[in-house]
Amino acid sequence: MIILGFDPGLATLGYGVIEKDLKGKVKMIDYGIISTPKGVALPERLCLIEKGVKQVIEKFKPDEIAIEELFFAKNVTTGINVAHARGVTLLTAVKSCGKIYEYTPLQIKQALTGYGRAEKHQIQSMVMTFLSLKSIPKPDDAADALAVALCHANTNKLGGLFKI
Amino acid sequence: MIILGFDPGLATLGYGVIEKDLKGKVKMIDYGIISTPKGVALPERLCLIEKGVKQVIEKFKPDEIAIEELFFAKNVTTGINVAHARGVTLLTAVKSCGKIYEYTPLQIKQALTGYGRAEKHQIQSMVMTFLSLKSIPKPDDAADALAVALCHANTNKLGGLFKI
Repeated sequence: MIILGFDPGLATLGYGVIEKDLKGKVKMIDYGIISTPKGVALPERLCLIEKGVKQVIEKFKPDEIAIEELFFAKNVTTGINVAHARGVTLLTAVKSCGKIYEYTPLQIKQALTGYGRAEKHQIQSMVMTFLSLKSIPKPDDAADALAVALCHANTNKLGGLFKI
Repeated sequence: MIILGFDPGLATLGYGVIEKDLKGKVKMIDYGIISTPKGVALPERLCLIEKGVKQVIEKFKPDEIAIEELFFAKNVTTGINVAHARGVTLLTAVKSCGKIYEYTPLQIKQALTGYGRAEKHQIQSMVMTFLSLKSIPKPDDAADALAVALCHANTNKLGGLFKI
């Protein structure tokens, strides 16, 4: 099963693609970012997000898509922009794939480390370990997207736990 | 020139359609709402928003589209949901029409009443007056969308002031 994870963003949207076999073993397929320039008007940036998300879905043909939920304690303005882009990501994903799952930052941290208050570097280390990578994927948005995909692989009720 | 105004929302998205003639005189064409049920998952609700926005644009073939910017001082969670829907609205609008204009609540209030702190009922009264309506359009979301369209008709640099 191919799982595509998204770390939502307007300037930088991370994606991570993993494969989970019938035994629950996971491996990394690809990861990267979709970026939009700051000087461009919001509607055009949203078109770029749609185009990028479509391309990733067409390329990897995921069976299921997982996307992080938004949580903002501080910067509401940035949050609104990210939410615009996340709305477009969700729309494009559900139209192309149909199976969309949302996870909170807490769920992702718990799924990867067993601890809801884990630090970013702890999550990234676990991404590296679970996917048997030699280094932490860069940029952070791509590593975060792989974490979302792994969270889904781990918590999917149809699947069960993944194994290293 | 046909102007379509949107008052963004996830549960209720208001739209208002007006025509502005070469002399700057405005008249009401139509108004209404696109609504999505609360029990439905967010990605499906966003699909309904896209479908509704497309239908309105195809029906009225606006030359220009105006949409209110978001401003949240209180409820960030509601704000995030509205921003998801607004992202989808912007995407659908720019793909169907191309000419999108965004206005802040302050700009809309000033354009309609000359006063940035005008109350909701004052805005609605001005919508009724400018469009020579016998009563205030209902629901509020539709009246707000007409206000956005009128704001655009008033502040559009190509047009100049509208006349009653």
